[in-house]
Amino acid sequence: MDNPKHLLRALTGISVWPPPIWLMRQAGRYLPEYRAVRAKAKDFIALCTTPELATEVTLQPIRRYRLDAAILFSDILMVPWALGQGLAFREGEGPVLPPLRDASGVAALDPSRLLDRVAPILETVRQVRQTLPEEGLGGTALIGFAGSPFTVACYMVEGGGSRDFAATRSMAFGSPALFAQLLDILADATVSYLSAQIDAGAEAVMLFDSWAGVLSPGQFRTHVVRTTRRIVGELGRRHPAVPVIGFPRLAGLLVGEYARATGVHAVGLDTGTDLVLAKSLMQSRVALQGNLDPIALLAGGSAMRIEATSILEAMRGWPFVFNLGHGIVPQTPPAYVAELVELVRAA
Amino acid sequence: MDNPKHLLRALTGISVWPPPIWLMRQAGRYLPEYRAVRAKAKDFIALCTTPELATEVTLQPIRRYRLDAAILFSDILMVPWALGQGLAFREGEGPVLPPLRDASGVAALDPSRLLDRVAPILETVRQVRQTLPEEGLGGTALIGFAGSPFTVACYMVEGGGSRDFAATRSMAFGSPALFAQLLDILADATVSYLSAQIDAGAEAVMLFDSWAGVLSPGQFRTHVVRTTRRIVGELGRRHPAVPVIGFPRLAGLLVGEYARATGVHAVGLDTGTDLVLAKSLMQSRVALQGNLDPIALLAGGSAMRIEATSILEAMRGWPFVFNLGHGIVPQTPPAYVAELVELVRAA
Repeated sequence: MDNPKHLLRALTGISVWPPPIWLMRQAGRYLPEYRAVRAKAKDFIALCTTPELATEVTLQPIRRYRLDAAILFSDILMVPWALGQGLAFREGEGPVLPPLRDASGVAALDPSRLLDRVAPILETVRQVRQTLPEEGLGGTALIGFAGSPFTVACYMVEGGGSRDFAATRSMAFGSPALFAQLLDILADATVSYLSAQIDAGAEAVMLFDSWAGVLSPGQFRTHVVRTTRRIVGELGRRHPAVPVIGFPRLAGLLVGEYARATGVHAVGLDTGTDLVLAKSLMQSRVALQGNLDPIALLAGGSAMRIEATSILEAMRGWPFVFNLGHGIVPQTPPAYVAELVELVRAA
Repeated sequence: MDNPKHLLRALTGISVWPPPIWLMRQAGRYLPEYRAVRAKAKDFIALCTTPELATEVTLQPIRRYRLDAAILFSDILMVPWALGQGLAFREGEGPVLPPLRDASGVAALDPSRLLDRVAPILETVRQVRQTLPEEGLGGTALIGFAGSPFTVACYMVEGGGSRDFAATRSMAFGSPALFAQLLDILADATVSYLSAQIDAGAEAVMLFDSWAGVLSPGQFRTHVVRTTRRIVGELGRRHPAVPVIGFPRLAGLLVGEYARATGVHAVGLDTGTDLVLAKSLMQSRVALQGNLDPIALLAGGSAMRIEATSILEAMRGWPFVFNLGHGIVPQTPPAYVAELVELVRAA
């Protein structure tokens, strides 16, 4: 029997029209009700690990917009945090970690406590799933997520964000065995973590590979495709009915190979990707998700309508999930999001 | 008669093998002799506008490595500087300009003094061309350059570098007529500037569009393809024998359309681009240039050799110029560059 939720139908290869819609960072600072809850938490990590608060912010955009998916409110760096690497979020600066640059840093990671430490996040998944509307429109599915090992390693090695992640790429070239060991630890942790999210109620999972595009093609195959295939394969053995969305940001020409070689059920596309060309690179009708420019949503009005309409025209008839190409920016007026949802629902 | 210089032969569609080689930022901080000259100049702008110093640093990598091309030592922001927008380079911070956010900022740009202000840069072009070895190996060609209007506008609107150039993209969506006016002013200035470089001795020119990849496909067509086609067309009317290299960094799937629709003679490819796929997207045998990961060069040894060899294997038989996918990083040992040149010469 087909799953009645529109998002899950689309992710498993069925063209649902109008397409299901959710938006990356739909729970976030652009919403006044998010800022109110955020103010109650000591810091960002406390927000992610306090189930009542994380559940509340996860549900806020669903109440406002009745989107087709809720996505767990959390952060891709909760895996290194759960492995014991220090992590702090500084206002306006982003994440800060003690840089991991050598074998002793890798040896210090402790996977044995991973599931204990993420227990509050799994509790959030349970609470959100219990509360989500199952009926009406196409239902609201719950998406769990993690960062891809390569992208998570980027932050771990640099000790935070970076323009080009040169230290990470230097380790990948200069200490390939050590870097592979780090990615293997992260891949195993990611499988455990996502599997636990699924057990707790996540109906689909997404792997964010925000920095996949900084690699040469050979390194992309080794670090992005190989580890993603491993994760998708193991999740498929454990949870054959749960679709996996991969988001290899800035993969460019390699997006077709990524789709084919990793086995993901759906591919998230970034803002710059031409959807007609992306379809032509897919060897099967793998679901695609994307890719409105968040700045077009910030601008609103005709700019938003022209860009969104062009996406809808390109994707009619294909298994598709409407989304942004990158996260909502904090200055976005919530009313513009409502207008976008209405436009997509009328497609 | 065929031009005897290898670089110019490759740029005009002939497969020269071993391929000509030059490297983005080949004149730069990784060279001790560059740092010595840099110390003599008051600031970076003084270095770019003092012909004796700029000529010297342009020639330094040619003396060391006997590369197939010298590229004028300058900066893509010398055009806004010559249009009268303030510009400073702060150590470790990159360029700083007063942000241009409205019609008064556009109106304040003064194209009438452009060629006067860049006169010292044109003098550098003349001095370099007089000194370059014309003979031996395949000769050394002189490449002039400018930033593409979109990328230059990014820095002008933001007031410097940015991770995502949100203010620029907001202006493009929210004030399309004003943004188009800015790009038109920059396109005209770029034609004048590059044309003057050619008159002074540049034998090929390159348009750096470092931030082309932040745009949605529709905006890419409007701001990158349209303005580049206009520049290439006008340069072609004035200087039909001079090849233009376009470098639409992170254009991803749109690189084929960029090549076809702009009329550039050669396309520079960034680090992440798979060369075999890029060739398959070209409708004609347009020359390609790229794309060794600068971090592989920084790592040196087998990492560099594996990556460089894979590029050479992919491009044999195609009109090709060996280069990096992004600029040399300052920590690169000069000896590694020598080893790379030797490897390419032995292909």
